Amino acid sequence: MKWTMIATWRMAIEGITEASKDLEKGCFSGNAIEKAIKMVEDFPYYKSVGYGGLPNEKCQVELDAAYMDGDTLSIGAIGGITDFKNPISIAKKLSEERFNCFLVGLGANEYAQKEGFERVNMLTDRAKRHYQKRIRETIDKGLSPYAGHDTVGMIAIDKNGKMAAGTSTSGLFMKKKGRVGDSPVSGSGFYVDSEIGGASATGLGEDLMKGCISYEIVRLMKEGLHPQQAADKAVLELNEKLIKRRGKSGDISIVALNNKGEWGVATNIEGFTFSVVSEDEHPTVYLCNKINNGQTTYDVATKEWLEAYEKRIKSPITFD
Amino acid sequence: MKWTMIATWRMAIEGITEASKDLEKGCFSGNAIEKAIKMVEDFPYYKSVGYGGLPNEKCQVELDAAYMDGDTLSIGAIGGITDFKNPISIAKKLSEERFNCFLVGLGANEYAQKEGFERVNMLTDRAKRHYQKRIRETIDKGLSPYAGHDTVGMIAIDKNGKMAAGTSTSGLFMKKKGRVGDSPVSGSGFYVDSEIGGASATGLGEDLMKGCISYEIVRLMKEGLHPQQAADKAVLELNEKLIKRRGKSGDISIVALNNKGEWGVATNIEGFTFSVVSEDEHPTVYLCNKINNGQTTYDVATKEWLEAYEKRIKSPITFD
Repeated sequence: MKWTMIATWRMAIEGITEASKDLEKGCFSGNAIEKAIKMVEDFPYYKSVGYGGLPNEKCQVELDAAYMDGDTLSIGAIGGITDFKNPISIAKKLSEERFNCFLVGLGANEYAQKEGFERVNMLTDRAKRHYQKRIRETIDKGLSPYAGHDTVGMIAIDKNGKMAAGTSTSGLFMKKKGRVGDSPVSGSGFYVDSEIGGASATGLGEDLMKGCISYEIVRLMKEGLHPQQAADKAVLELNEKLIKRRGKSGDISIVALNNKGEWGVATNIEGFTFSVVSEDEHPTVYLCNKINNGQTTYDVATKEWLEAYEKRIKSPITFD
Repeated sequence: MKWTMIATWRMAIEGITEASKDLEKGCFSGNAIEKAIKMVEDFPYYKSVGYGGLPNEKCQVELDAAYMDGDTLSIGAIGGITDFKNPISIAKKLSEERFNCFLVGLGANEYAQKEGFERVNMLTDRAKRHYQKRIRETIDKGLSPYAGHDTVGMIAIDKNGKMAAGTSTSGLFMKKKGRVGDSPVSGSGFYVDSEIGGASATGLGEDLMKGCISYEIVRLMKEGLHPQQAADKAVLELNEKLIKRRGKSGDISIVALNNKGEWGVATNIEGFTFSVVSEDEHPTVYLCNKINNGQTTYDVATKEWLEAYEKRIKSPITFD
């Protein structure tokens, strides 16, 4: 079986690069997902996941994560956990439970504490500065507080054909305390079945939940659609449905992978990026174009783009 | 348009009876759902929903609820809220938000507090006695703590063809603090689209989430299946898949209603009951038989059964 790993956003590239070495050796896809997402969580300059993630309106970093095993369909999920280093590992551990595998708030904290997971103050100075800047912008300029919500979502298949999915996010920037998005919600933020394939979403969780979009993509792949066709069809339909019923659609971006190692992506926004690695493909970052005439296109990120990205995420946060 | 309302369990009958008077007058299905579920929440002898609901392992009553509008697809959901009288009303209010419409734990409490929702100590003496009894049984007899998880889930269509869905539950008895089940999870505990129909689930939330079963049933109805066929097919497939992949399946029970007012139900357990009322049908309680050869059958509850039920839910809780 051809091993493959696909993830939302450029920020996943270091993680999937490292985890791909394990997949190459024949390791379990679920462990590769955990390793890759931990790297995203640990990197302080990725401001929407884990350490350094953007805080809620009370300046608390509340984190959501989920893990799903494509063989057993076991799911572990957490919502609104605070000050634990690696939410993905807590979610993966929870997936071993038959009962109580989706925990939120203080209950999620208590579970992680008892299971010995590492505590860290997840609020960085840089994230706090982002927060202060946004507070000023919303007060002084009347901007919406809610911008930025990049979830890392991954799907992997290993040499043995086992598939797994994982998500991790600090959620919507400036969200209300206790707000949970799609990332820990089965079928919306993620879904995977080793007999078919998997999908994971990033965007406005509130709207992604209205379409159960990850489940829908897996279902379309079950009907025989290529992951690219499935992703295009599902994103287009949900986008149009939301516009028809509500006048507008939030951001919807998707990565999908089937159990042959074929993948696809789709997005209704400009600026979505994703990362892929497989037996046939070196770790690669792609820039995705907004879906057009029902089709999503993408290009390999240029050296210039990658360098500008590196510079941008570390640039000083200046107030006007 | 023929108005109809279907709900999980016998406990819904008083609520849908009362709400049906509004539907008869042409009122909005969403308000009928709220009124009906509030009645279930308020009745102290229904031990899995609202006031008198069974507590978690720490003897705290943590409540989950959701509301979905079939026209706009707006969703409001709460997980692990404590000591508010009517979780369904809080969920319905949240569905008016574009952002932050799924709130959990203390964040859910804060929202409800700010919005002026009524606080009540939701733990009754009777529920505490149930808790003490179960503690003894798990210690003395080694019984699983996790039994009993009856969610009230409802779907309604009004004279104008507008559909809505709602759920409310205290969740799995003796659950861990912060455990969230399928009830506030879009696509698992509920889903409704006025252009197709809706479905709602009750059972082991952890397993229902593995199949996004409410979304799947709505999707099957979109393909043209009658709600009964859709419910049978989805329950059968998820039950078989869970047994194949995991060796066993948790309880799965479903009610479904399409936008013509046709309904269906399915269950993989003995003892599931449901309640229906429509323009053509007086409020009726049905006893459902476990799915057999791919088909679910049911019978109108007899007077004897209904009387025995009334007696049972109010009978003293005795310790061995």
